[in-house]
Amino acid sequence: MKFCSQCGNPVIQRIPEGDSRLRYVCEQCHTVHYQNPNIVAGCLVTVGDQVLLCRRAIEPRLGYWTLPAGFMENGETVEQAARRETVEEACAELEELHLYSLIDVPHINQVHVFYRARLSGTQFAAGIESLEVQLFDEADIPWSELAFMTVRRTLECYFADRQRQVYPVHTSALPPSRPTLDT
Amino acid sequence: MKFCSQCGNPVIQRIPEGDSRLRYVCEQCHTVHYQNPNIVAGCLVTVGDQVLLCRRAIEPRLGYWTLPAGFMENGETVEQAARRETVEEACAELEELHLYSLIDVPHINQVHVFYRARLSGTQFAAGIESLEVQLFDEADIPWSELAFMTVRRTLECYFADRQRQVYPVHTSALPPSRPTLDT
Repeated sequence: MKFCSQCGNPVIQRIPEGDSRLRYVCEQCHTVHYQNPNIVAGCLVTVGDQVLLCRRAIEPRLGYWTLPAGFMENGETVEQAARRETVEEACAELEELHLYSLIDVPHINQVHVFYRARLSGTQFAAGIESLEVQLFDEADIPWSELAFMTVRRTLECYFADRQRQVYPVHTSALPPSRPTLDT
Repeated sequence: MKFCSQCGNPVIQRIPEGDSRLRYVCEQCHTVHYQNPNIVAGCLVTVGDQVLLCRRAIEPRLGYWTLPAGFMENGETVEQAARRETVEEACAELEELHLYSLIDVPHINQVHVFYRARLSGTQFAAGIESLEVQLFDEADIPWSELAFMTVRRTLECYFADRQRQVYPVHTSALPPSRPTLDT
């Protein structure tokens, strides 16, 4: 951030009065520009024993496999965001959504939230951001070609929980210095 | 948003190519300025059968009672944010935090996340943003003087769950047009 989005003058970084953090502040119009983490919402979609994965058609991690997910938008709920991303990336409609994992990714100011869901009907297809969309048995999950660590963790939790048929909400955080990319 | 935070030129609203939503876009430097929901993180702190509430010293809802909570900051986890806000507003250290409620507030682009936690030790006091901090028995909760609907919902879930001694994670959304303020 270099300029004030309210008045167009240059901003500086300083700790505002009564605050304890460096913020971008406009000394002309006195606007404090707060910057906060974003939510990435997605779905672990199942069809019988299989899980739906999308191969990414865009950077980052083009060509790697992911659960359908993306940035939550203003005006929607986290669940609506997870549904929308699944429609956009996998052309898949869902039923029985349940909050499943909430994983902090503090080094990039993100929180990843995944829902478990069942495919509604039988239809799915590659959306514009996917090269292909495919159902995988547990034995065939391309673990070494997953796009993101939060996707790996969510899948690991799921296959462990499936053994017990109990699906609690899982919370965890990626280490501060760890890349999200799991190669 | 009126000006580009990257180059200082005026922004316009349009739907970028490949997108489906109106964004603030700079036609000089081509930056797209995304705007996304914020997370508000807080704690339902218990001491024996009592729950800790803070009476707000700041707007909005000055003078009303709330669970300690506030905006999650870059670089921290949701749980760290909930802990920090509890220290700031109630000078209270916590133990045994468990994710407890995730409530969408889409009309103001927020997601409120509360943890259950126990007070560590016996110390608490009004922080700079609180007029007073007090422990309440269930019978004495000031329901008509609560600051926010998400606080009310989280307390209602807690007292209901306590009857059964089972504390699942609760997810819900406030209606799109409903104010958060519960008078």
